[in-house]
Amino acid sequence: MPITYQLNLRISVPGNSPSPPLLYTDTTRSPDALYFGQVNIPDPFIAFSLRGKKYAIVSALEFGRVRKTSDFDSVLPLDEYLRRARVFWPERKIGPAEVIVLAAQDYGQRRFTVPEDFPAAIYQKLTGLGLELAIADGPLFPSREIKTPTEIAAIREGNHCSALGFAAAELILRSAKVKGRQLHHRGKILTSETLKFAIEVACLEAGAVSANTIVAGGDQACDPHERGTGPLRAHELIIIDIFPRVTRTGFHGDMTRTFLRGRANEAQRGLVDAVRSAQIAATKSIRAGVNGRFIHNLVVQEFLRRGFATRHTPKGSTGFFHSTGHGLGLAVHEMPKISGAVDCLLPENAVVTVEPGLYYPGLGGCRIEDVVQVTPTSTRLLSRYHYQWELT
Amino acid sequence: MPITYQLNLRISVPGNSPSPPLLYTDTTRSPDALYFGQVNIPDPFIAFSLRGKKYAIVSALEFGRVRKTSDFDSVLPLDEYLRRARVFWPERKIGPAEVIVLAAQDYGQRRFTVPEDFPAAIYQKLTGLGLELAIADGPLFPSREIKTPTEIAAIREGNHCSALGFAAAELILRSAKVKGRQLHHRGKILTSETLKFAIEVACLEAGAVSANTIVAGGDQACDPHERGTGPLRAHELIIIDIFPRVTRTGFHGDMTRTFLRGRANEAQRGLVDAVRSAQIAATKSIRAGVNGRFIHNLVVQEFLRRGFATRHTPKGSTGFFHSTGHGLGLAVHEMPKISGAVDCLLPENAVVTVEPGLYYPGLGGCRIEDVVQVTPTSTRLLSRYHYQWELT
Repeated sequence: MPITYQLNLRISVPGNSPSPPLLYTDTTRSPDALYFGQVNIPDPFIAFSLRGKKYAIVSALEFGRVRKTSDFDSVLPLDEYLRRARVFWPERKIGPAEVIVLAAQDYGQRRFTVPEDFPAAIYQKLTGLGLELAIADGPLFPSREIKTPTEIAAIREGNHCSALGFAAAELILRSAKVKGRQLHHRGKILTSETLKFAIEVACLEAGAVSANTIVAGGDQACDPHERGTGPLRAHELIIIDIFPRVTRTGFHGDMTRTFLRGRANEAQRGLVDAVRSAQIAATKSIRAGVNGRFIHNLVVQEFLRRGFATRHTPKGSTGFFHSTGHGLGLAVHEMPKISGAVDCLLPENAVVTVEPGLYYPGLGGCRIEDVVQVTPTSTRLLSRYHYQWELT
Repeated sequence: MPITYQLNLRISVPGNSPSPPLLYTDTTRSPDALYFGQVNIPDPFIAFSLRGKKYAIVSALEFGRVRKTSDFDSVLPLDEYLRRARVFWPERKIGPAEVIVLAAQDYGQRRFTVPEDFPAAIYQKLTGLGLELAIADGPLFPSREIKTPTEIAAIREGNHCSALGFAAAELILRSAKVKGRQLHHRGKILTSETLKFAIEVACLEAGAVSANTIVAGGDQACDPHERGTGPLRAHELIIIDIFPRVTRTGFHGDMTRTFLRGRANEAQRGLVDAVRSAQIAATKSIRAGVNGRFIHNLVVQEFLRRGFATRHTPKGSTGFFHSTGHGLGLAVHEMPKISGAVDCLLPENAVVTVEPGLYYPGLGGCRIEDVVQVTPTSTRLLSRYHYQWELT
């Protein structure tokens, strides 16, 4: 059935000014929503701003808590809007789109900007009901890219949790017994799962959830998003990537170290040296205004100079085949990008990871990742853990 | 700049047949994507099906792993499509929309169905480039609502993790020392944080991540989504809601119990009795074909019969003001609904929570939640933990 009803809304924003943001999502999916309202809301809700004030429309389940603890200036009851919508459109199936239209009418606003990931179904209904929606071309809140001192501290705290995870893992790796190519821990064969459990408990104890922790040894580590399962072996490279989210703030840490328990061979040493020196070279060149693509190409050149080629085959890729870094904050992956695929100028007070890696089945994988704040002249390191990787 | 280019695509699906699904999302956000590909992909990727086969387009970072471990029949390299798109549209900013259009051209398909939460920005670009997109009205994969025996077992496993969490919490509550209204554990005042840590470690040890665990006592529990912070007190109701996700399967458990350490008074006993008997009444009436709204109304009536009224005020709500239950699976909240707000028939082999609750500041909150499989004649309980709540 076509949508024929058109509301007669007053236009309150001139045509050439940016229209205010409108969101419909939950804060687990959307860092934008968490940033906007500064409160955790696990089910989808409506949020918008008008004339410098922030509004949320939430269910009775959330109402009291969001009123008490959020950054919203006005929290409106969803149930009341649903009731009004049912009266207004007795023949129509009522949902968030109809509620948004009633609220827009209440506040005399018919133009909004929605994020790129705004739900297509609601977008279509809203435009059908007469709202004018612009879709953001890029981030809805570009200010999310520039971190405040409080946000920087929250990211440091996230990285501190990552570091606690490394400490827990290193303790087990060091205390493991080497029996030939096997590693034994408390009488059992040491597995990725054992290390992940120790890491995740260390993060929990510090108030952070480390989901999808990567502990991958040997050829498993050559798939950079493989989390790792089963026995870890002596004399093999083991990539550990910990990106916990601090529950209280929503901010993440994101650090990677590569370890080896036993004795490394020359090829492994060459690999790790190359990754660490590429990381140092990249970090040294980061400052406000630099293009991320330039930083990425420094890493590529350093690897080529040392003879580490990248190849793409129908079965997969070897060498260096991910980006050098990404913004870090309420999302693990956010703006800006340090990648060979896009031009991206790094602004002052952006926070980015620097994480070159090399992956060759047979030899193994190595990735080393730290987090830096971009300053006008250089960087400030926001992640601390040593780089001693050979645990003999 | 307006989009003028239109691809000349062959139409391969007759106008009256449903067009195949198309997704652009990641598996952390989208249970649909996890269901479709049976593999965890943390960054957004393209997935679609055609003529009974499933396709994914992923970056080099994911390529090898997804080829090896997913349910996709064909895994295509994103980099190759990006390269082609840059040649095809030298003047255009290239992104997922352009890649989707090239893939659609390769496979001679111009019509797709996208989920309700498909990103509006890509929806708009794709329709501008000549694809015909239908937006699903309801779930993209209605079969997700009907659980297979394997999925039922995975949900049981999730609930087993919840039960381990209750056991860990109960052990601490029972062993805590009551000093007046205070609870002491190992010489310190017992807090929500201590119980949450013990619960989350128990879940981790069993292979599940319990994020946003709720341990809320006293008036805190009267906001049903308040996670709880600070000291837990003796002689007060404490709501514990544990909804862990099993890492291996992606399926959730979801159970709630209400405890009290010390001595309950008559008002607290009346509250807990009402909630448990409403839960029993609701569960007894669930079978395939029943309307969820009818089940919800049984709970409302049981509360009214016992004198527990629901009130909505400008400051918040008291009484019973959330839905009775929801589908459970790869998402914590999914179809079908057991709610007073919508008609929703419960199909055979749906899995739903049954979780009435009552909340009165001053007296406290109580919620009891179990999970059942809907059968033709009744239900099968998929969650097991006892209901003894007064820990004297």
